Amino acid sequence: MFKYGNEMVKKLKTSRRKFVVGSLAAGSALISSTKSIASNIDDKAITEMQPWNSELGDGVDANPYGFPSEYEKHVIRRNVPWLTADPTSSVNFTPLHELDGTITPNGLCFERHHGGVAIIDPKKYRFMINGLVDQNTIFDLSDLARFPRVNKLYFLECAANSGMEWRGAQLNGCQFTHGMIHNVLYTGIPLKDILKEVGLKSSAKWILAEGADSSAMTRSIPIEKAMDDCIIAFKMNGESLRPEQGYPVRLVVPGWEGNMWVKWIRRIEVGDKPWHHREETSKYTDLFSNGKARRFTWEMDAKSVITNPSPQAPITHGRGQTVITGVAWSGRGKIQKVDVSIDGGVNWAEARLSGPADTKSMHRFYFEFNWDGKPLLLQSRAMDDTGYVQPTKDQLRSIRGENSIYHNNGIQTWAVDKDGIAENVEVS
Amino acid sequence: MFKYGNEMVKKLKTSRRKFVVGSLAAGSALISSTKSIASNIDDKAITEMQPWNSELGDGVDANPYGFPSEYEKHVIRRNVPWLTADPTSSVNFTPLHELDGTITPNGLCFERHHGGVAIIDPKKYRFMINGLVDQNTIFDLSDLARFPRVNKLYFLECAANSGMEWRGAQLNGCQFTHGMIHNVLYTGIPLKDILKEVGLKSSAKWILAEGADSSAMTRSIPIEKAMDDCIIAFKMNGESLRPEQGYPVRLVVPGWEGNMWVKWIRRIEVGDKPWHHREETSKYTDLFSNGKARRFTWEMDAKSVITNPSPQAPITHGRGQTVITGVAWSGRGKIQKVDVSIDGGVNWAEARLSGPADTKSMHRFYFEFNWDGKPLLLQSRAMDDTGYVQPTKDQLRSIRGENSIYHNNGIQTWAVDKDGIAENVEVS
Repeated sequence: MFKYGNEMVKKLKTSRRKFVVGSLAAGSALISSTKSIASNIDDKAITEMQPWNSELGDGVDANPYGFPSEYEKHVIRRNVPWLTADPTSSVNFTPLHELDGTITPNGLCFERHHGGVAIIDPKKYRFMINGLVDQNTIFDLSDLARFPRVNKLYFLECAANSGMEWRGAQLNGCQFTHGMIHNVLYTGIPLKDILKEVGLKSSAKWILAEGADSSAMTRSIPIEKAMDDCIIAFKMNGESLRPEQGYPVRLVVPGWEGNMWVKWIRRIEVGDKPWHHREETSKYTDLFSNGKARRFTWEMDAKSVITNPSPQAPITHGRGQTVITGVAWSGRGKIQKVDVSIDGGVNWAEARLSGPADTKSMHRFYFEFNWDGKPLLLQSRAMDDTGYVQPTKDQLRSIRGENSIYHNNGIQTWAVDKDGIAENVEVS
Repeated sequence: MFKYGNEMVKKLKTSRRKFVVGSLAAGSALISSTKSIASNIDDKAITEMQPWNSELGDGVDANPYGFPSEYEKHVIRRNVPWLTADPTSSVNFTPLHELDGTITPNGLCFERHHGGVAIIDPKKYRFMINGLVDQNTIFDLSDLARFPRVNKLYFLECAANSGMEWRGAQLNGCQFTHGMIHNVLYTGIPLKDILKEVGLKSSAKWILAEGADSSAMTRSIPIEKAMDDCIIAFKMNGESLRPEQGYPVRLVVPGWEGNMWVKWIRRIEVGDKPWHHREETSKYTDLFSNGKARRFTWEMDAKSVITNPSPQAPITHGRGQTVITGVAWSGRGKIQKVDVSIDGGVNWAEARLSGPADTKSMHRFYFEFNWDGKPLLLQSRAMDDTGYVQPTKDQLRSIRGENSIYHNNGIQTWAVDKDGIAENVEVS
């Protein structure tokens, strides 16, 4: 998927410093009831009249569709121009460090295209099902509007998320290390209802999902998954899908790698074996150090990352009462708990989960503590309701080596210095 | 709040037709297992190459912050220019008929300003608490970042939502009859934690919340509510509050009328009695037919509306399998169930709830049936977990008369004709 050359590593890496775990004596700071809300403030800012206290602002006719504040212009999806040959087959990253809660706003959901954003006229949109079915059928949008709908919150993670980190700490910011993920409330039709409507033949074992974009993205999916929780979705977070997320219709494959969530879906073929298309063989498979690749890796395993503080989001308020927050998810179920360490994994304390979350959706965690101003080695570790615990990067490398690109769910470490500045580091 | 003159009524009303309940024999259609997914489609639309099948689209560098499809330009907040003297003290409406699920996208959340949108520099933002507290305190944003946060999904409804309908069917579209509502996931600080930090004196009985905008919106709130579930919020649906929703900080007062959710909040004064400011006396109180007004009406009672079909969203696919959908909410708790009638309230059937929803948040309901193509009188009726059932408009009028403006939670009726066209009507 990406060109992982030495040149890129040199450009990106900010620190390959290895921290020896245990060098920080921070255990005693894990639990604290001391508060210190500083109010070292220039009072003039509230006692003096500000322009917004006296001047009329825009009326209700100014912005029929609203946008963020001009003071939030830095909160954007960011791409890395040299990462791929062309921006029409590339990726940008969700600014996780600027977000909170459990919903990713539509305008900030990371993008991954293989042929640029398809702009589809909804009047001309068609969705076809053919192959091992009783009735080859073509639907338009008003046909799809007749099916019962469901609303489900799911994360979508690119299989390549954190892929750079296999070879050590490379990218300095959770937007870049973990930003190929978003969490969205989808409205759509259970795929099983549509497949039942057209009638599956008994020989039906696989489906092929095909996109209408110029890359005609195609992926094979076993029929058990298609009949389980897949959705033909047309709304995200309440409104129509955004163009870059598959407008007007995309496939939702909960918990499975994002590449399978075919955007701009135009066809499902039902067959009796997988198709082995390009994007499921030469790409999106896991290369081991012996040169062999795992045939399929669909589920995204439990993973988490601390979003604040992080390299793009230092601690700015100094020592004292401090909130650590981040996100956790699992393609196999709900997140049961998240632990946080401030000393590189020697001591762990359970974080607090907050906000709407369900199976195969992103969860938000918080960990509040009284920072003594000493350096920190921050880590988070997710556990899902299957009992699976997020591994260290070294544990993953011991199985797959360092040639792998996809499916890196290893524990991330941020080193925070006495000034609150964070950087991406490795611990061992 | 609004000018309710005869001129406006004439401009807006499309039908004051009264339907006699029982004139439609539709009961037998309430339950159906017959499906008829039509596929009366020009096959060329899928067999012929479309531009998006072969042309490269925008790359990942094109839209750092994304926007809806150009084909969705009609999905906007709409205001009614003659409703108020000036758009800086007016309202626009959420396009409920274009949405689905339970989240209102930030760009489509209705606006209500009293002095236009305040544009606040976050570096100069200050939040003060004074009055009956141990320590008058001023916070900036980095101080607020130290407090533990929560994530909660809540509806915000303007007390004037559906206010026009007191005098009969007036506005032809749920965007206008019910669009002064949105449902958002807030991230913020429990107000009680901040009040505990500054220390409440034992004489503290009320708080005054004051906005930093040019109208300096002020509302009195009893201390019990302030210490219950109010939030000092800075994120909505994951990202920073939008300017028109109070950037950088607003007050969230779950379940209570929207006017109390002070935007651009700059100050909370703690006192021992209500202040009786303009926006809680001359406005936002309920005027009875005897000329007296109810002093305070805070909670928004259980309410619902069918969003599809509705006057702005006709049935376009003809008879057969049809989905009716809408939203329901209660300021007193969770929605326990929603009933739907297709015959003006003679027969009722329970709808299906779907999607993330919690106490004091919007719920989504669906009712699937086999439409025989005969005219319909559509109604929905919400019941919350206190056992309260949404009343008819006539039941409300029997108590408050027709001079009231605020807090109309009566049952809404749409008449749907054989062609699927809907209009706003009254039944009796």
